[in-house]
Amino acid sequence: MRAEPLRFITFEGSEGAGKSTQIRRLEARLLSLGETVLTIREPGGTPLGERLRRLLKESSPELTLSPESELFLFLASRAQVVRQTIRPALGRASWVLSDRFSDSTLAYQGGGRGFSPILLRSLNELACAGLSPGITFVLDLSLSEAAARIAQRKQESAQGDRIEEEPPEFFERVRSAYRDLARLEPDRIRLIDAGRPEDEVADGIWEIVSHVFGL
Amino acid sequence: MRAEPLRFITFEGSEGAGKSTQIRRLEARLLSLGETVLTIREPGGTPLGERLRRLLKESSPELTLSPESELFLFLASRAQVVRQTIRPALGRASWVLSDRFSDSTLAYQGGGRGFSPILLRSLNELACAGLSPGITFVLDLSLSEAAARIAQRKQESAQGDRIEEEPPEFFERVRSAYRDLARLEPDRIRLIDAGRPEDEVADGIWEIVSHVFGL
Repeated sequence: MRAEPLRFITFEGSEGAGKSTQIRRLEARLLSLGETVLTIREPGGTPLGERLRRLLKESSPELTLSPESELFLFLASRAQVVRQTIRPALGRASWVLSDRFSDSTLAYQGGGRGFSPILLRSLNELACAGLSPGITFVLDLSLSEAAARIAQRKQESAQGDRIEEEPPEFFERVRSAYRDLARLEPDRIRLIDAGRPEDEVADGIWEIVSHVFGL
Repeated sequence: MRAEPLRFITFEGSEGAGKSTQIRRLEARLLSLGETVLTIREPGGTPLGERLRRLLKESSPELTLSPESELFLFLASRAQVVRQTIRPALGRASWVLSDRFSDSTLAYQGGGRGFSPILLRSLNELACAGLSPGITFVLDLSLSEAAARIAQRKQESAQGDRIEEEPPEFFERVRSAYRDLARLEPDRIRLIDAGRPEDEVADGIWEIVSHVFGL
C-alpha cells in the first residue's frame, strides 16, 4: 500500500475560477468530520507574505515591478509560509488548504511570462525545501467565463489588480500551462471543470479527497 | 588596449566600514570634474527597493524572515534597480555609485548564512541580467573596529537593524568571504584597508578610479 499523501491541498487556476469558494466548501466538509484545518492563501499566510501580497497586488504607476522582481517576491512569500506556517501545521496533524502555491509560479511566471520551467522548478525547490502538495486541484475555466466572473466581481468590489491588466494571450498561456502540469503529474494534479455549477464542482472535489485519504 | 570598464562602481564591506562616507567623497570628486553621478543604495534605488529595504531592516518579533525569504527579497530589489535605475543611468553616460550590490549577497548570504556560492551566483545572474560593476571597493575593517563604529552610530541615532543581531562569528564569515572574493577577481574587486584615516582611504580610492578610467 502506498503511503497516504500529505494533508496539504492546493487550489490553482485563473482568477474567477472559484478557488476561494471551493476551498471554503472543502474546509466545511473537513471541519464537519472533526478535522483541524488551516486555510491560507499565496502570497500570504505570514506577516511577511501579507505585506508582499499588498505590494504584488498594487497597481500604481510609481511601483514598477520587473518580471524578475515579481518572481522573487512570490518566492520570498512562499519560502516564509512553508517554514513558518505550513510545516508546523502539518506537524500538528492539521490539514492545510492553500489558495495557490508552487504551481502558480510554473503557470504564471512560466507559461505567462516565459521563464524557463527548469529555472522555476529549481527556484521552487529552494523556496519549498522539498514540500509538495498531497493533491492539487486546478480549477479549469474558459477565458471568456473567467473574464465574465471577474467583471462581475469588479462591479461588486471596485477592486483592480495588477495581474488583471495582462492581455488575453497571457491568460491563454497560463491556462495551457496548468493543463500541461496536470498531464505531467496526473497523480497529484487533478484538472477540475470549473464551468459546472458550484455544488457539482464541490462534490467532485470531495469525491477525490475522500477517496485519496480514505475519509 | 582593453575596453574601459563600466562606470558602475560598488562599495562593499561591513556596516561601519565607511561606505557612505567614501561614496560621498568619490561622488564629490567626480562632480567637481563635471561628471554626472547617480548614487544609490541596496536594497533600494527604486520605489520597490525602498519598500523592501524597510521590510529587510525591520527588527520586529512579528516579522519573521527565513534566510531564503531574505535572500529572495534582496534579489527582488536588485532585479528592479538594475532594470529601472542602473542600466538607464549608464545609458545616459552617468556614473553609478552603489552602496552594496551583488557581492553583498555572496558575502552575507553565502559566507554569513551558508548558501552555496554556485546557487547565489546563478541567482545574481538572474537578478542582474549580466550586469557587473566596473570596480568594486571592499572596505575591509576589523570586527572590533566595526563594532565600535556601529556602537557610536547607534548612540547618535538610536537605530537598530535586524542584521546587527547576528553573532560575531557571522561577521567573521562575511569578512572572510569578502576577502576571498577579492582574491578571486582582483581586477574588479579592490580590497581597501578601511582602518586608516578617512582622507587616506578617499585618496586611495581616487587613485584607483582615476587610473582605471584615465581621469
